[in-house]
Amino acid sequence: MFDKLRQFLIGKPLKSEQLHGEKINVPFGLSILSSDAISSVAYASEEILWVLVPVIGIAAYKFMFYDALAIIGLLFILVFSYRQTITSYPSGGGAYIVAKDNLGVIPGLVAGASLSVDYILTVAVSISAGTAAITSAFPSLLNHRVTIALIFLVLLMVGNLRGVSESTKLFAFPPYLFIFAMLSMIVYGIYKVKVLGYVPQVPSNLPQQVSDLTMFIFLRAFAAGCTALTGVEAVSNGIPNFKEPAAKNAIRVLFLLAAIIFIMFGGISYLATLYHAVPSIDKTVVSEIAVEVFGTGFMYYLIQAATAIILVLAANTAFSGLPLLLAVIARDGYTPRQLKQRGQRLSFSNGIIFLSSAAALLIIIFRGETHYLIPLYAVGVFISFTLSQSGMVVKWFKQRHSDNKWFLKAGVNGFGAIITFITVIIIGLTKFLSGAWIVLILIPTLVYLMMKVKVHYQNVTKGLKLDPDKVPDLILSKHGPRHFIVLVESLNKAVFKSIDYAKCLSDDIVAFHVSIDEEETEKLKKRWEEYNIGIPLVIKESPYRELIKPLLDYIESDEHSSKWGEMITVVMPQFVVKKTWENALHNQTSMLIRTKLLNHNVEDYANITVISVPYLIEEFEEE
Amino acid sequence: MFDKLRQFLIGKPLKSEQLHGEKINVPFGLSILSSDAISSVAYASEEILWVLVPVIGIAAYKFMFYDALAIIGLLFILVFSYRQTITSYPSGGGAYIVAKDNLGVIPGLVAGASLSVDYILTVAVSISAGTAAITSAFPSLLNHRVTIALIFLVLLMVGNLRGVSESTKLFAFPPYLFIFAMLSMIVYGIYKVKVLGYVPQVPSNLPQQVSDLTMFIFLRAFAAGCTALTGVEAVSNGIPNFKEPAAKNAIRVLFLLAAIIFIMFGGISYLATLYHAVPSIDKTVVSEIAVEVFGTGFMYYLIQAATAIILVLAANTAFSGLPLLLAVIARDGYTPRQLKQRGQRLSFSNGIIFLSSAAALLIIIFRGETHYLIPLYAVGVFISFTLSQSGMVVKWFKQRHSDNKWFLKAGVNGFGAIITFITVIIIGLTKFLSGAWIVLILIPTLVYLMMKVKVHYQNVTKGLKLDPDKVPDLILSKHGPRHFIVLVESLNKAVFKSIDYAKCLSDDIVAFHVSIDEEETEKLKKRWEEYNIGIPLVIKESPYRELIKPLLDYIESDEHSSKWGEMITVVMPQFVVKKTWENALHNQTSMLIRTKLLNHNVEDYANITVISVPYLIEEFEEE
Repeated sequence: MFDKLRQFLIGKPLKSEQLHGEKINVPFGLSILSSDAISSVAYASEEILWVLVPVIGIAAYKFMFYDALAIIGLLFILVFSYRQTITSYPSGGGAYIVAKDNLGVIPGLVAGASLSVDYILTVAVSISAGTAAITSAFPSLLNHRVTIALIFLVLLMVGNLRGVSESTKLFAFPPYLFIFAMLSMIVYGIYKVKVLGYVPQVPSNLPQQVSDLTMFIFLRAFAAGCTALTGVEAVSNGIPNFKEPAAKNAIRVLFLLAAIIFIMFGGISYLATLYHAVPSIDKTVVSEIAVEVFGTGFMYYLIQAATAIILVLAANTAFSGLPLLLAVIARDGYTPRQLKQRGQRLSFSNGIIFLSSAAALLIIIFRGETHYLIPLYAVGVFISFTLSQSGMVVKWFKQRHSDNKWFLKAGVNGFGAIITFITVIIIGLTKFLSGAWIVLILIPTLVYLMMKVKVHYQNVTKGLKLDPDKVPDLILSKHGPRHFIVLVESLNKAVFKSIDYAKCLSDDIVAFHVSIDEEETEKLKKRWEEYNIGIPLVIKESPYRELIKPLLDYIESDEHSSKWGEMITVVMPQFVVKKTWENALHNQTSMLIRTKLLNHNVEDYANITVISVPYLIEEFEEE
Repeated sequence: MFDKLRQFLIGKPLKSEQLHGEKINVPFGLSILSSDAISSVAYASEEILWVLVPVIGIAAYKFMFYDALAIIGLLFILVFSYRQTITSYPSGGGAYIVAKDNLGVIPGLVAGASLSVDYILTVAVSISAGTAAITSAFPSLLNHRVTIALIFLVLLMVGNLRGVSESTKLFAFPPYLFIFAMLSMIVYGIYKVKVLGYVPQVPSNLPQQVSDLTMFIFLRAFAAGCTALTGVEAVSNGIPNFKEPAAKNAIRVLFLLAAIIFIMFGGISYLATLYHAVPSIDKTVVSEIAVEVFGTGFMYYLIQAATAIILVLAANTAFSGLPLLLAVIARDGYTPRQLKQRGQRLSFSNGIIFLSSAAALLIIIFRGETHYLIPLYAVGVFISFTLSQSGMVVKWFKQRHSDNKWFLKAGVNGFGAIITFITVIIIGLTKFLSGAWIVLILIPTLVYLMMKVKVHYQNVTKGLKLDPDKVPDLILSKHGPRHFIVLVESLNKAVFKSIDYAKCLSDDIVAFHVSIDEEETEKLKKRWEEYNIGIPLVIKESPYRELIKPLLDYIESDEHSSKWGEMITVVMPQFVVKKTWENALHNQTSMLIRTKLLNHNVEDYANITVISVPYLIEEFEEE
């Protein structure tokens, strides 16, 4: 039944060979990888105004435009830098790979951790913002915003579990709708003022200037606006998802994306200047401008709806990006290996589920309020930009003898590295107290954990590896691991079957009973004799109602000390039921016992083997 | 390490014999079982005013007093009814037992389900209200109220996991502090008006009368106030926790409790009338009165602090009540049997953890806002009151030949039953749309689930039971379950050990490999020959990357069809690591495989036994 539900939700399993059929072309790639970057247009200008307007009043519009220009400049630097990265790393050149290859493992992991944190934040922020767009339109839903956000999250998760291609198809249309709506607004908005001569009024609620613009405030506004650039990395990370020629297609998408952000972010910022939009709690800047330009007609609602949808879908960029990134890192052994397995639909199911859970946690903790999350945002991505660009510089330098254009290329990436590093400093300083510190603690923690994971896997590989010159002796076969202990709670058919099973494998069997309830124990003793089982019954008291300790004490006791080096086999009767849910009523204890026994090592030797003998309970009619 | 943390938090394990040392006397019993009932004084009067004041303005104070009187009358009916119950059921006479014994299983389960729902709500409501008292005093904490509430919840959980007696000691003082503070306020408040001649002003923000008092509004106010009585059941359920003579001590606590509620609820209601307290969002009625009586001095803060603490501790009543109730029901087989096990500290750990989780869920869903939860409250407890009293009536009727006072006793309980039934109707009708419907759906659902659990346990017992006349044959020993399948992912030391182990138990062994990655499979084949393992290697393709299905297909295939009726033994190499956290990086797959294999039945016969052979990975130095 569970399998059927799963199949209904995520579709039929796909064969491994179908992987190459699941690739995306340029228009699909643009829509699936762009929504994060494009959607930030919906709040990046506003975030800048939130910093500037309360301080410098109407002068904000002028400086906002400078901030926007700086950000667009940064965008172009990034695009040219990343173009070189994509060409050099056609099989996926995320910051992790570039930094690891050229700068070493630790910088690579720092980049990977930074990106991971930012991908998770992307999902939480975008879904929260999309939900806010809806609840602004329908205030009665405000109390349910966490629920709405979680529903969106689940929909995205399911869509992505279905697989690469289908999630693209599902999500291909809205970005174009959003682009169309925004461009219409920008074009008509400018036309209305410049050609039709419409004069927007300076709003009455515009705050007065309270102080001069300081450098700090200007940079803080710049840092706030940098959230607009968080989606760019996705393209270089997503190259393997593209149709061949993958690198070329990725570059096309990158340039198209930059052009769109340039036009839209620039356009909206210009409109905000023309129309003097004032940021406020209950209305977004985009919505204010839309009302001025179109009135509250069809176009206004189209813009609001498209904004809401694209914000939710922006999260989808992270769903394409993070699972792939985690799989790449897992291949190197720094994240749990479960992350590199493709699910039945060829998507990285575990990564998708991890991302969904982490984002759900953030949404619940921050109760779906975007502005608590925003300060945590963008630090991570700019750290990874910096590392990625620095890595490229090192790469060009290494190739200096074979590539006569190396200096030019290194210059492009070096300039990018310097600029993005300055941006990291700006964001870190101006947002430090309001949340960036969390990220700056989290990233080294993640790096530490990834190192630990790697050490663990190395240990395992080393510990399991066979010495080619020395085939291990088959020691056990010589001694014969014949000592069996059958666990008995009470005497029933399942226990009988276990004893039966044990008897055909060994002649050295005891039954072991932990006595918690005296009455039960007496009953067992009596019946043991009545049924004439023929194997000794060992009974140990457990005053603290523990089950495992008495057994381990018995195994380690004198009676067995002569047998060290041998395997002890514990046989556990386990009855099974037909309905899955009924298993929840049993078997947790036996699972715990098994785990403890298997992990019990004496003198660095795991010597307790556990046999589970199933006994099927028949279904009786309900009485 | 986990064990040490647990011991630090909940203390050293206690022996089963120490159970009787963990009993409570009357003063402790009063404080541990009373806080729910007593604390409702902090909001019951206010809930009444919330209903009345907006409708009838100043006339509210007159009718509020009538409502309070009606509720106190109800309290006395309950006390006399429950006195008879405690005498008749000295070993714990919760509504569940009384209803089940006298009315049948279904009414018993309805009572049990109703009480369970209300206990969980008690925890959620009380902790939320206590948190609200704190955040009212320190508004800057308002955004963290869910976190604060969850911290309280965890503290209560830990306190209760430590065990009966210690949780009492921990929580004994605050109720008395609260009683002292409230009584001081009541006495001085009346003295100030009646003797000192202080004339409280009619507040300017008192709403005008908008309509006449209807019966519906009066009853709704009554229903709102009935939350004051939700704690009474706890005493009769908690009898086994009392020192001997348990029943007498319980009755003493019951009467003391009633007297305290009578004085405090009556007193506060009277003060509200004298001082014209107006309910408002940002100040509680008690806090308003306290300001009028004492000014904002020491006594005001004492009252606020005591209120906050007692509200949180009120949740503690449920922590004594629900786990015990669930254990009683589990003994009858209607709830999972894990609920009847006492933990290492002799408390019902699973019940406590269940209660904490359910309440945490409610707190998170309703974001710690009391007034969303209040409408769900009190329906359940009055349903259980009604069933309990009806059950007592039936009991007296059955005893009519042996007890010449039966008619009087039946009269007391019968009157109680009628009155509480009317109250159920009133609460159900007046609160139906605002939330009581949820409870009225939930209760039958829970009853249904409990019936299913019972059927399951009956099935298991029946399925496992040995026929005393017919000792089952040891079939397997005759055939010999010698067919072994060793699962092989790659060739390593752990696999070697498993093969070694299998070899000493059987001569009929194959190694089985599921091929997901062709390269890996080729490598395995080659090494298999190199190492000259000597048992056949079976390889099956798995295009959908599944592990279990190919194995089951193989087991069910023709090659084995001749062997049906035998046990097939699957040997799983399992490497174990010394650090517990590292296991999270492995072994989920093997757990899943084991579960699936054990639950795989052919022709109603579970015939796949699973052997886990552990191999300990050595620790290498970090490189």
